[in-house]
Amino acid sequence: MVSSVAKPVVGILMGSKSDLDVMKEASEALEGFGVACEMRVISAHRSPKLLDEYLSSARGRGISVIIAGAGGAAHLAGVVASHTTLPVIGVPVESKSLKGLDSLLSTIQMPPGVPVATVGINAAKNAGILAVHMLALSDASLAKKLDAYRADMAEKIRATKI
Amino acid sequence: MVSSVAKPVVGILMGSKSDLDVMKEASEALEGFGVACEMRVISAHRSPKLLDEYLSSARGRGISVIIAGAGGAAHLAGVVASHTTLPVIGVPVESKSLKGLDSLLSTIQMPPGVPVATVGINAAKNAGILAVHMLALSDASLAKKLDAYRADMAEKIRATKI
Amino acid sequence: MVSSVAKPVVGILMGSKSDLDVMKEASEALEGFGVACEMRVISAHRSPKLLDEYLSSARGRGISVIIAGAGGAAHLAGVVASHTTLPVIGVPVESKSLKGLDSLLSTIQMPPGVPVATVGINAAKNAGILAVHMLALSDASLAKKLDAYRADMAEKIRATKI
Amino acid sequence: MVSSVAKPVVGILMGSKSDLDVMKEASEALEGFGVACEMRVISAHRSPKLLDEYLSSARGRGISVIIAGAGGAAHLAGVVASHTTLPVIGVPVESKSLKGLDSLLSTIQMPPGVPVATVGINAAKNAGILAVHMLALSDASLAKKLDAYRADMAEKIRATKI
Amino acid sequence: MVSSVAKPVVGILMGSKSDLDVMKEASEALEGFGVACEMRVISAHRSPKLLDEYLSSARGRGISVIIAGAGGAAHLAGVVASHTTLPVIGVPVESKSLKGLDSLLSTIQMPPGVPVATVGINAAKNAGILAVHMLALSDASLAKKLDAYRADMAEKIRATKI
Amino acid sequence: MVSSVAKPVVGILMGSKSDLDVMKEASEALEGFGVACEMRVISAHRSPKLLDEYLSSARGRGISVIIAGAGGAAHLAGVVASHTTLPVIGVPVESKSLKGLDSLLSTIQMPPGVPVATVGINAAKNAGILAVHMLALSDASLAKKLDAYRADMAEKIRATKI
Amino acid sequence: MVSSVAKPVVGILMGSKSDLDVMKEASEALEGFGVACEMRVISAHRSPKLLDEYLSSARGRGISVIIAGAGGAAHLAGVVASHTTLPVIGVPVESKSLKGLDSLLSTIQMPPGVPVATVGINAAKNAGILAVHMLALSDASLAKKLDAYRADMAEKIRATKI
Amino acid sequence: MVSSVAKPVVGILMGSKSDLDVMKEASEALEGFGVACEMRVISAHRSPKLLDEYLSSARGRGISVIIAGAGGAAHLAGVVASHTTLPVIGVPVESKSLKGLDSLLSTIQMPPGVPVATVGINAAKNAGILAVHMLALSDASLAKKLDAYRADMAEKIRATKI
Repeated sequence: MVSSVAKPVVGILMGSKSDLDVMKEASEALEGFGVACEMRVISAHRSPKLLDEYLSSARGRGISVIIAGAGGAAHLAGVVASHTTLPVIGVPVESKSLKGLDSLLSTIQMPPGVPVATVGINAAKNAGILAVHMLALSDASLAKKLDAYRADMAEKIRATKI
Repeated sequence: MVSSVAKPVVGILMGSKSDLDVMKEASEALEGFGVACEMRVISAHRSPKLLDEYLSSARGRGISVIIAGAGGAAHLAGVVASHTTLPVIGVPVESKSLKGLDSLLSTIQMPPGVPVATVGINAAKNAGILAVHMLALSDASLAKKLDAYRADMAEKIRATKI
Repeated sequence: MVSSVAKPVVGILMGSKSDLDVMKEASEALEGFGVACEMRVISAHRSPKLLDEYLSSARGRGISVIIAGAGGAAHLAGVVASHTTLPVIGVPVESKSLKGLDSLLSTIQMPPGVPVATVGINAAKNAGILAVHMLALSDASLAKKLDAYRADMAEKIRATKI
Repeated sequence: MVSSVAKPVVGILMGSKSDLDVMKEASEALEGFGVACEMRVISAHRSPKLLDEYLSSARGRGISVIIAGAGGAAHLAGVVASHTTLPVIGVPVESKSLKGLDSLLSTIQMPPGVPVATVGINAAKNAGILAVHMLALSDASLAKKLDAYRADMAEKIRATKI
Repeated sequence: MVSSVAKPVVGILMGSKSDLDVMKEASEALEGFGVACEMRVISAHRSPKLLDEYLSSARGRGISVIIAGAGGAAHLAGVVASHTTLPVIGVPVESKSLKGLDSLLSTIQMPPGVPVATVGINAAKNAGILAVHMLALSDASLAKKLDAYRADMAEKIRATKI
Repeated sequence: MVSSVAKPVVGILMGSKSDLDVMKEASEALEGFGVACEMRVISAHRSPKLLDEYLSSARGRGISVIIAGAGGAAHLAGVVASHTTLPVIGVPVESKSLKGLDSLLSTIQMPPGVPVATVGINAAKNAGILAVHMLALSDASLAKKLDAYRADMAEKIRATKI
Repeated sequence: MVSSVAKPVVGILMGSKSDLDVMKEASEALEGFGVACEMRVISAHRSPKLLDEYLSSARGRGISVIIAGAGGAAHLAGVVASHTTLPVIGVPVESKSLKGLDSLLSTIQMPPGVPVATVGINAAKNAGILAVHMLALSDASLAKKLDAYRADMAEKIRATKI
Repeated sequence: MVSSVAKPVVGILMGSKSDLDVMKEASEALEGFGVACEMRVISAHRSPKLLDEYLSSARGRGISVIIAGAGGAAHLAGVVASHTTLPVIGVPVESKSLKGLDSLLSTIQMPPGVPVATVGINAAKNAGILAVHMLALSDASLAKKLDAYRADMAEKIRATKI
């Protein structure tokens, strides 16, 4: 796992370093497809200026998709989406008391006009793969890799012994 | 109901004009105590710059407390709280499908360091009265009015015939 | 609203004709951006062969993104996602008794490897706009239209009088 | 516990090997009644072709009832039910964050025409016994065994000392 | 709709006459397949003796499957299941305040040993069809009818115009 | 803790021996007030005849109040209430997956005419004390003990040092 | 319906006059058994002194059981229970947004030592009948009436035609 | 952590000593800002007189804000709010079975006229900081400290390495 690479195309943001255990599965999934990414801890509530700085430079630096993970009143993905027109994928991180139901609803129930592509609770791996699906729209080699990934997944299940 | 007055001390923000029916109960409550307020439609997601503008001038214009109401992924109060150190009161507005449970959790489950004083679903009236309680900390006449308000409320219940 | 056009790039599927009132907001959003789409009633449970037929030809016919809406045990988006590597956007349609909580969880809680980009309950409009965000990754004119759309949205809120 | 026998009449499917600890209680219950069964890991989302293959041969091989267990967006039982007219029993497997509420709703809230006989969360034992109840409709010896099972259960409770 | 026929093979019980609007869809579904049924209002809580009488004679009168629908603390299906080894299908009827979540959990979360085959909230039609699936295990003509029913359902969806 | 005494006035029933850790708090509370009780494992679903036997003799043996605890589809209290006009107190026992929400709703949402006096999840101690409140209606010495219990409880809190 | 009688033995309290439509079913149930009762609007939050006054005189005036109904943060029954050792029956009144789930949890989840005998949401009728069950412990004529009530209820169900 | 100081301006109440681990984060937060506070265990239900005593002297002793934390049927904050016009901040303490959902709803869904400024589940730290926000309305040095606190928080996030 690396938090930055020379030319990242996916930015992975998280509201707190405690989300790293969950969110690093997004970077691992992207790396599995050879998609460069960077990871940053940026809080919508506690470091709003840092978020502005990040978003004002992201597209120019080549970022195409942003993945944002947060827990509780998980505003990060929504606030990111309100500041950029890049596709934003939201990862509701499991919270201590309410087990991520708060994170899920805070991430997905966005108002008309500002969508967040939300994945399941703690499903950072799927967020990474969803980013690959989006990038594969204009990258035939990624599309091929997705086909191979699916075939491999099916093969593993077929080979499962119980 | 007036949306602006000469010298408002409470700012009432709402994410959409459709929240007005709920949120005007906050302004009515404040007016009942003679506390000047202003109301604005400002969306955290759809008009983030307008929100910045509002918050950068609010304290200077004499605003002491901000009440923010929104529904669904209700980020407004939290985003306001992240940009000001004035006390922020959040009103979770009832949403269509989930009846405000999403609004409530999105408003109240804030991360450590950035609190939102949350009231019940659609409880804009209580938001207005809570602002009065806060202002009464340094305004003895308001404190007296609160005593009278309570006494009146109790008297009305005592007089209820069934 | 038209259910088919000459060269659609987004396919909108729904589990039942009763979902049309919700799902047509996706086609309207896409049309607002000049993105051609087609709409089909296809049930994962009641017409699985029809779904196979649709998916086996979709990419070849130029479909780039699939939006799938269903209610209750809303399997449609997930089953579509399991048969294609095009990005799949899921719309949980509000159900009668549980108000879409069942639809939401059935759509979003996908297993690792097969993501569905889920939007809020009944948020078909946002599904359409999310498809535009994805397509804009490789279409600069769409990216410009999204900027204009955001600016227009913010302007409307700024102009709201209460 | 055996995963296959010469002439199985009940097929037990599960979406992931991690469901085995729960699902083997179904096979143990069936074995207690002398009903032969087989167990397979087949994912509706990750190995759809394997599922097609299994279902196209099941009835011909003598399978009379299918038990399907999955967690999260638990589509397995519903997808099985859409491809066969054998009775399908769904076991919502407890999920990590939402404790099986997602699995339960995804399994049970099927559209009209395609029922899944759902049992409680993680209630694979009851799924096995329910299959016996169904098979006992045309097998008098199984019906007798069910009577004995009930009597034994009642006797054990009567003998409980506290 | 008829509440009784000469030789019923499915018994449909409901806790209150107010459940009839929901539960008659079970009898209609059965009639569509030519399966004779009878309907009775019997409350587990308010008429326990009547329930005993019904169950003691049911099997002898040719009843093979019992469908039981109730709302709130919906004990009917479970209590029926505790008194018979015929397969019992539970229909959680939507309740006024909690919209059937109480009915669903009260019906499905049965203890080990006494399963209730539960269908979705208000899904009495599916309860009827599930009974047909069970009966078709030993009735080839019913199995054929189910195939035709499925084909017809798929055809209707294929023919849907939007 | 004793499970039986010479002349019990409260009967404590539980659906499974695994409920004993929770339910013994009821007997301990009763013993604290000098109220004799007996405890029995009786399942509404798995030993319905044993339940009939118990209830047919309870009043005659001097039982005045019945406390019933169960988890999941917790029908025990309701079924007891349907067979006796003694006051029935229900204890929803915490269940594994749904943490007692199922037990709570299954116990409390009784139909009109057959009430169960329900206490909180796992609140067997309060069930015991509630029985004392009921018995104290016609037993002045118990009423006095309740006053002393309350005074003692308040005193302990007053003395708490932190 | 009368709100007061010469010598009431049951006091029915409600937090707001808007609860009357629900709560009068308690008084009607009591009247059906010839049990005198009185009804009062008293709010735990808005008229705490009135509540103190009521409770300090209740036992002396012959009140034996108190029924308390409230919605939302429904503290009334709990606060009443903390001030008296008479048995307290809580009626969670359905609230507008959360449909009484808040009322139910606020009423039933009492701390150890201070139980509230809670009935279902809006189940004021059952609260009245539960009070009769309690009073019947020392009133044989009431016990007889309960037997007759049950028999009548069963008879009505037996006579139901569908 | 100290439970009392010479001249406290914030009173921190909790329903049980078991809430101390959570609630001491409020006192620690206040101490971080140099705001004196005192902590008391006082139960709304088990020691109502002690609560009356505390509240009748609080304002006179210089208390300006009261923070109240409780779990389950968490009435403490609401009962405090009904007896004082000082601002009351409620902390829903996580409960064992329902994880604080009961505590949250019991604290926040107050009736019109008696607001409780509620923070997230177990968010006692935020309760302390919210009290500082309120006090800062009339204390410029506290306002400055809040600015510094925010800047420090943002700086720490900016410096986070992953």
